[in-house]
Amino acid sequence: MMRELFEPRSVVLVGVSRQTGVGAYNGLEMLQRYGYAGRVYVVHPQAEEILGQRVYPRVQDLPEVPELAVIAVNRDLVLPVAQECFAKGIRWLVIITQGFADADEQGKELQAELVAAARQYQARIVGPNTMGVLNAFHCFSTAFVDLICPADPPPVSLVAQSGAPQVGAESFTGPLGKAVDLGNAADVGFVEVLEYLEQDPQTRVIALHIEGLTEGRQFLATAARVNRSKPLVILKTGVSQAGAEAALSHTGSLVGQDQVFAAACARAGLTRVHTTLDLLDTVKAFRKLPPMRGPRVGIATPSGALGIIALDALSREGLVPGPLPESIRQMVEPLGPYWHALHNPVDLWPIGMLTGDFLKVAGQTLTNFLADPNIDGVLCMLPSLGSPLHQNIIATPAFFADLELEKFNKPVVVALYGNARDALAQDLDPVPGIACFFSVEQAAHALGQRHRYDGAVSKPLETFALSEPAVIPAPPAAPLMLGQEALDFLAKHGIPGIAGRLTHNLNQAMVTAASVGYPVVLKIISPDYIHKSDQGGVILNLRDEADLVAGFARLQPLLAGAPRDAASGILVQKQLRGQELLLGLKQDATFGPVIVCGYGGTHTELWQDTAQTLAPLTPEQVHNLLASLRSFPLLTGYRGEPAVDLEDLVRIIINLSNLAVAQPHLQELDINPLKAMLGGCWAVDARLVWR
Amino acid sequence: MMRELFEPRSVVLVGVSRQTGVGAYNGLEMLQRYGYAGRVYVVHPQAEEILGQRVYPRVQDLPEVPELAVIAVNRDLVLPVAQECFAKGIRWLVIITQGFADADEQGKELQAELVAAARQYQARIVGPNTMGVLNAFHCFSTAFVDLICPADPPPVSLVAQSGAPQVGAESFTGPLGKAVDLGNAADVGFVEVLEYLEQDPQTRVIALHIEGLTEGRQFLATAARVNRSKPLVILKTGVSQAGAEAALSHTGSLVGQDQVFAAACARAGLTRVHTTLDLLDTVKAFRKLPPMRGPRVGIATPSGALGIIALDALSREGLVPGPLPESIRQMVEPLGPYWHALHNPVDLWPIGMLTGDFLKVAGQTLTNFLADPNIDGVLCMLPSLGSPLHQNIIATPAFFADLELEKFNKPVVVALYGNARDALAQDLDPVPGIACFFSVEQAAHALGQRHRYDGAVSKPLETFALSEPAVIPAPPAAPLMLGQEALDFLAKHGIPGIAGRLTHNLNQAMVTAASVGYPVVLKIISPDYIHKSDQGGVILNLRDEADLVAGFARLQPLLAGAPRDAASGILVQKQLRGQELLLGLKQDATFGPVIVCGYGGTHTELWQDTAQTLAPLTPEQVHNLLASLRSFPLLTGYRGEPAVDLEDLVRIIINLSNLAVAQPHLQELDINPLKAMLGGCWAVDARLVWR
Repeated sequence: MMRELFEPRSVVLVGVSRQTGVGAYNGLEMLQRYGYAGRVYVVHPQAEEILGQRVYPRVQDLPEVPELAVIAVNRDLVLPVAQECFAKGIRWLVIITQGFADADEQGKELQAELVAAARQYQARIVGPNTMGVLNAFHCFSTAFVDLICPADPPPVSLVAQSGAPQVGAESFTGPLGKAVDLGNAADVGFVEVLEYLEQDPQTRVIALHIEGLTEGRQFLATAARVNRSKPLVILKTGVSQAGAEAALSHTGSLVGQDQVFAAACARAGLTRVHTTLDLLDTVKAFRKLPPMRGPRVGIATPSGALGIIALDALSREGLVPGPLPESIRQMVEPLGPYWHALHNPVDLWPIGMLTGDFLKVAGQTLTNFLADPNIDGVLCMLPSLGSPLHQNIIATPAFFADLELEKFNKPVVVALYGNARDALAQDLDPVPGIACFFSVEQAAHALGQRHRYDGAVSKPLETFALSEPAVIPAPPAAPLMLGQEALDFLAKHGIPGIAGRLTHNLNQAMVTAASVGYPVVLKIISPDYIHKSDQGGVILNLRDEADLVAGFARLQPLLAGAPRDAASGILVQKQLRGQELLLGLKQDATFGPVIVCGYGGTHTELWQDTAQTLAPLTPEQVHNLLASLRSFPLLTGYRGEPAVDLEDLVRIIINLSNLAVAQPHLQELDINPLKAMLGGCWAVDARLVWR
Repeated sequence: MMRELFEPRSVVLVGVSRQTGVGAYNGLEMLQRYGYAGRVYVVHPQAEEILGQRVYPRVQDLPEVPELAVIAVNRDLVLPVAQECFAKGIRWLVIITQGFADADEQGKELQAELVAAARQYQARIVGPNTMGVLNAFHCFSTAFVDLICPADPPPVSLVAQSGAPQVGAESFTGPLGKAVDLGNAADVGFVEVLEYLEQDPQTRVIALHIEGLTEGRQFLATAARVNRSKPLVILKTGVSQAGAEAALSHTGSLVGQDQVFAAACARAGLTRVHTTLDLLDTVKAFRKLPPMRGPRVGIATPSGALGIIALDALSREGLVPGPLPESIRQMVEPLGPYWHALHNPVDLWPIGMLTGDFLKVAGQTLTNFLADPNIDGVLCMLPSLGSPLHQNIIATPAFFADLELEKFNKPVVVALYGNARDALAQDLDPVPGIACFFSVEQAAHALGQRHRYDGAVSKPLETFALSEPAVIPAPPAAPLMLGQEALDFLAKHGIPGIAGRLTHNLNQAMVTAASVGYPVVLKIISPDYIHKSDQGGVILNLRDEADLVAGFARLQPLLAGAPRDAASGILVQKQLRGQELLLGLKQDATFGPVIVCGYGGTHTELWQDTAQTLAPLTPEQVHNLLASLRSFPLLTGYRGEPAVDLEDLVRIIINLSNLAVAQPHLQELDINPLKAMLGGCWAVDARLVWR
């Protein structure tokens, strides 16, 4: 059905101005210039003709039902015009007009009415506040800007929430074959466009510009699947605003929206970029480079200095120089005395001076690298100079075509430098098997992106759907659950708490201490003592009854006046030695249940050593999560300290993740610390926040 | 004297080929094409004439003493030719030839002989292995590549260790006014070129490409001073190779060469970049932008989406959107109903639609931002489209010239996007008061670089010279100093050790424990127990004599056969509670004494929370160093824990830094842990490595 949006046979424009030319932003003029060959209708209340095109006063007067309507009237007229379209039978609307959810309260209401009307007619809306759709293969564009339709459209499609990346494609993605600006995304969203592009034979690479997502899980599942066959490159913006929300828990304060988005992309194997330049470069890498099967790079350089710069850049990308192929050694040896050390990077210049043919040396070096099974990709630096005296060292399209590099099916990136690089890069763009960049570091990064992508999609595809729990338990009456009550709740869900009891008098405390065994800890439990460690509400290391009596006497006055209920009292717990972890969950507005683990205890915020991912989790995923912590060595036995019971820890985190899925009302949860030791793991303190 | 290198009145070329044109790399041809107007001589053993120029068979035959000789003969002939030049009275040599210290052992020897010969004649050498010098103001270049001399040379000078940045200037620094390739830097080095450029009225910005430095302190002192009046931009390469050296101490393994370079740049207030693209962008920022007095940016954008991208980018640069000027509100209000929220970023498009004049709105927004005292700089995104229909929204040089932005003396960066950006950027480059970039993030980064530079040079200039100690104490016989011996040495230099004594029998241990007071710690001291904690050689928490006896009995067998000397035994120490720090020093090959402090104890390597800087240190510098640690809050009283005696800690680190300067034979030193507490700080364990 989305065919009608991207390849309409007929389209009606409503809201086209009678003005044309400079400053008119006339959609009809742009569509004509873009070369659209379908049937175009124009609706205008007064005009009889615009740009040689007959004009109809109302949509209902049109002689056929166009497949698509493009609406650019004043916002107050959008709803009536849309309703005319629906009544006529039009099922696809692109609403260019601004001033809806992007603007004021009235705009938000208008947008809701618009969507409701469309639902009634089973019609679909792109926008509002959009530049709409572009399909260079069909010479179709709804833009009010004069875009140039490329003669040979590239297999690159864009899904954005702005028209700017279409207007300035050269700066954001490179030339586009297809694009859609979802604008306010009131109706049509990322998921269904991705599903369309997945089936589209003219799309090989997909760039996404995302400001905000709804239905994060469905997006992830679709994106992860599409990414297998068509690499996605995601620019998520609004990072600076999406800091940690005002949070009631460690978990909430340590893990902001953007970190959840990052964790989601990591789980789904998606490539996320952080700058528009990286978007441009990564789209090119995916458009032009074949898979990279390992991290070993052959480096060819006309300058030793650039070779060193290349090593720096590759090292930042997690790539390594491969071993020097024997074939390159054999190429150089017959040339006579060679003073320089022959290694990878290969310095082409002194070898070129020996042979008198720089380009031949460069070509042989490239093919020798690519033919070597121990080399996974090649980074080559080449000058591009305008001087007529140096055309003998310029790697032209013919030079590369002769080498037939594409037959090696390994990525080759070229870093061009010099005053003729713009023109040369453009000439080289159609050459198969190479991708050109304007700096060594960008070229190395392109290899890195390709290598990371190929690694990510080699892992099994995950599912991200949440199985709706059969019964969603009602949240407790009080929104906060603390102390022994929290531990008891967790114990019921497979997360054992440390032995202890909430007591209200010394006698209860002594009985409890005797039963759990000394040494014990006393903790004040009260909504007034949220940071009880800092507030002097925790006494450690009570070795015997005398210690207990003294400790109880110190804490009891702090509770004066508090009710004797499950929410306050003095908690008596067995004292255990072990590693202290933080475990947590939060319900993210976009992606649902998120699990957090990290270094815990009183230094949690100091080190901020946490890792997060989406629930539910498999044991392997839990292990990977733990292994990503800087403090992971503490769990496996660090410098003579005993290892903890990792298997038990993994089991507990899986139980936590199941809890997160089963109880969506549980908004935030901290376990801090969880004591992990040789014999098992026990929650010592916990805080649950219910919605 | 360096005038003769950069602006020679006469030059002799030795080693010019008789071939010319494509592939000849003929230095005479290049010099002629570059437009040099001085007197040129050519020496060639056979030729009579090259390119219309009379040729002399030997240097001694020249009719005058040229100010400079450029030598490009085979490496075996370089020394004899150089000697001819010296004998003739030539005092400046540029030695193009490769194959010296850049190549094999023989090359290294040849280079040393060359330098020795030059010293004898008080002559100077640039190179060898160089492209030499370039001075566009003088139309002079020694390059064997056909460089284009710009008509209006920019005030940008380059000091590099490669010719590639001259050949591809457009890719590395932008157009150059002056440049020198130091090549192997056998004689002329960075310091004296910087001193020359400091006095050079044609230089305003200096780019440095550094592979390796000698005399790091002198470089820093010079660079820090020059940077005050002429911003330096440093690309230091070889980062990936310069990992931590094989080290005998924590300090050595935690702090590699590159971290010392980074610390040195930070101390000197120098701008270091890590990619060639950043070099290019930062040179442009410094060349074109006036100072930025604060972090508050006004943002003008033709698209809401780009505004969000700008906020993300500015946030990464430590910059913030300034408050919306009232003048902009007053500009928009009379235009009629405006649905959108008016804020910074200012979305130019809907306002431009209201007025029908996008450029006028853009111009007014820019000047209103710049006139506002609460705005320190402006980031503006602008389309640059080739279509004739959109020339009304293209910000031409005339548009900017009319605005006279330079009179506000605040930085304005423009991010151009679209298919005509290359040409527009070139046109806009000469416009004063603005700098153009090709992405929002690069434009924001340019502001960030300018802002950081202006902050760095507002601090007092430091001196980096080390006062040579009057007496350099001889190192001890043994290269390693451990345990009580190490602590005693430190105590003598103002770094108190914990109370304790190295004992060789139980009786000594008991007497010591009684005198320092229980609880005590026992530690095995032996070259065989370097990682004694991990090796079971430390027993903590001995509360009384019975504990001591049992502990001693456990450790004594481990010492079986070891000699009873200062290097082995059982150390009895008072046990103290407190924060555990690592203090260290190392003598860096380039920069001399370096001081390290960080989170200490058994988790030192786990968190790797260290900071380093050059000795000597003032109290304020020590405080800044400590404050840069993630674990700094532990020292000032974290979550109810007591603060440590910071004043004592600062005093101890200054003593350590003085020790590092006074004893250059002390190659590496670790104190780990240093126990810091309310009452003071004491070294608990130390290791000294002498050279």
